[in-house]
Amino acid sequence: MTPAPDPPEPEPRTHSRRVGRRPGGADTRGTVLAAARAEFAAHGYQKASMRGIARAAGVDPALLHHYFGSKDRLFLAVLDFPLDPRAVVGQIVAGERSQVGERIARFVLTLWDDPGVRDRLLAVLRGAAGSEEIAAMLRGFVAGELVARIAEGLELPQPELRVELALSQIIGLAMARYVIAVEPVASAPADELVPLLGPTLQRYLIGD
Amino acid sequence: MTPAPDPPEPEPRTHSRRVGRRPGGADTRGTVLAAARAEFAAHGYQKASMRGIARAAGVDPALLHHYFGSKDRLFLAVLDFPLDPRAVVGQIVAGERSQVGERIARFVLTLWDDPGVRDRLLAVLRGAAGSEEIAAMLRGFVAGELVARIAEGLELPQPELRVELALSQIIGLAMARYVIAVEPVASAPADELVPLLGPTLQRYLIGD
Repeated sequence: MTPAPDPPEPEPRTHSRRVGRRPGGADTRGTVLAAARAEFAAHGYQKASMRGIARAAGVDPALLHHYFGSKDRLFLAVLDFPLDPRAVVGQIVAGERSQVGERIARFVLTLWDDPGVRDRLLAVLRGAAGSEEIAAMLRGFVAGELVARIAEGLELPQPELRVELALSQIIGLAMARYVIAVEPVASAPADELVPLLGPTLQRYLIGD
Repeated sequence: MTPAPDPPEPEPRTHSRRVGRRPGGADTRGTVLAAARAEFAAHGYQKASMRGIARAAGVDPALLHHYFGSKDRLFLAVLDFPLDPRAVVGQIVAGERSQVGERIARFVLTLWDDPGVRDRLLAVLRGAAGSEEIAAMLRGFVAGELVARIAEGLELPQPELRVELALSQIIGLAMARYVIAVEPVASAPADELVPLLGPTLQRYLIGD
């Protein structure tokens, strides 16, 4: 429901993505993303640094910060990831604690109803399944940006394992519903799935 | 715990896989598997027939039945799938109904402790994520041989959806634990995971 806004294009005054000069042209964006991808793959999300990526791309670190803001946003741009985890976590953590499982289930299923968002999330999932490089990038990101933030926001005991089990159910649902696409789960309406999934997520996160 | 026995090699009297004559040589096995793969991909698991596969491979249907026994066993050989679903379902269905969730969780985690079994299962999962052809083959097989048998064996109400949700949790755990391999779920001992996963599977299958 809150797709991440695309980071601003370098040189926003021109509408052509193919025209541009360093620093700041559209080709710089491509160069930066390629360098970032290589650095994330080589060192993992957590050890890759904005400084190292800027050096590999041959741009000033200040430019990198100016256009992508932070390492997590740069990472999302590399994966073409359609969500801003900070906004997602904010939505999940806010509201009744006793309803968090159902809230997440509803949120995820509503999100996937948007084919554009769904396709980009599935591309990340397929990428991770097909490439240890992408899996390794995702690993550090999931642990550092998603799991840790949710655990902290919900003030969970034994936090990481429980958040990851909730995440495993969400990933597995995406695989069953959209990748293997076996019926009836492939076509079941959200209203039928939320009451079944909500208690699972609730129990993992908050406990019985 | 019950890896499917490999189907008998055609012409078991020779130890060389590269020597063999039709009907029955090791090259026939390769021809049959290639034809079966093509038929499963073209028509899906449920519509592909042993007769059609035999025709495409240029062998006698009786030979196909003799060496592979049934369509499901031939399919498992095509995917190099390390389990016989009939044996799995038998183990799942037998025993206390109130313990079925925990039994499945324990069974799955023990199975994955065997790297040979785990790698072949993951290869199928990666294949499905990377190829709509493999996903389509798997779809009919999962629905027809796995979900339907479990639902029938447990005499479930509203059966398919609940079995598929249980399956989605198992697939998602494999993705989180072995593909994305995020810690701590990647290294958590089975004894820690079973009490967390068991109630999820139990509730999906049997209800609260």
